[in-house]
Amino acid sequence: MKSKAVFYHAGCPVCVSAEEAVAAAIDRNKYDLEVVHFGNARDRIGEAEKLGVKSVPALVLDGGVFHINFGASMADVKGS
Amino acid sequence: MKSKAVFYHAGCPVCVSAEEAVAAAIDRNKYDLEVVHFGNARDRIGEAEKLGVKSVPALVLDGGVFHINFGASMADVKGS
Repeated sequence: MKSKAVFYHAGCPVCVSAEEAVAAAIDRNKYDLEVVHFGNARDRIGEAEKLGVKSVPALVLDGGVFHINFGASMADVKGS
Repeated sequence: MKSKAVFYHAGCPVCVSAEEAVAAAIDRNKYDLEVVHFGNARDRIGEAEKLGVKSVPALVLDGGVFHINFGASMADVKGS
């Protein structure tokens, strides 16, 4: 069974470059990858915060949060 | 031909968790992954700085630098 990977982002330039490089480099034989854009899925913000996402872009692998560079804080995401 | 991925770290706890999750999730059919531990390879510090690595752990994919969470600054790495 595959593990779960979720890439959270908000469409910022840093997010897009991370999606194109880091998310694209994830081994899809090991991980089911879901890409969540908060602009289209504001109802997922609470879930991300509960997981510990503090800024975007962020990659969650098996529940572990990895913030990649810095695009925007979750406060910015909520305010936008 | 595979692309090149380099994971730079310094053995810090944040580095280890990123190595175990993010570096391990990289698709090895797409990327040749090299793991560089500055504690064992201080001669690679200059190369990393030239690439734009500001902190560790950092993942460099095709020359693009992605800092993951924050383990230690390069100043800390050089001072240690």
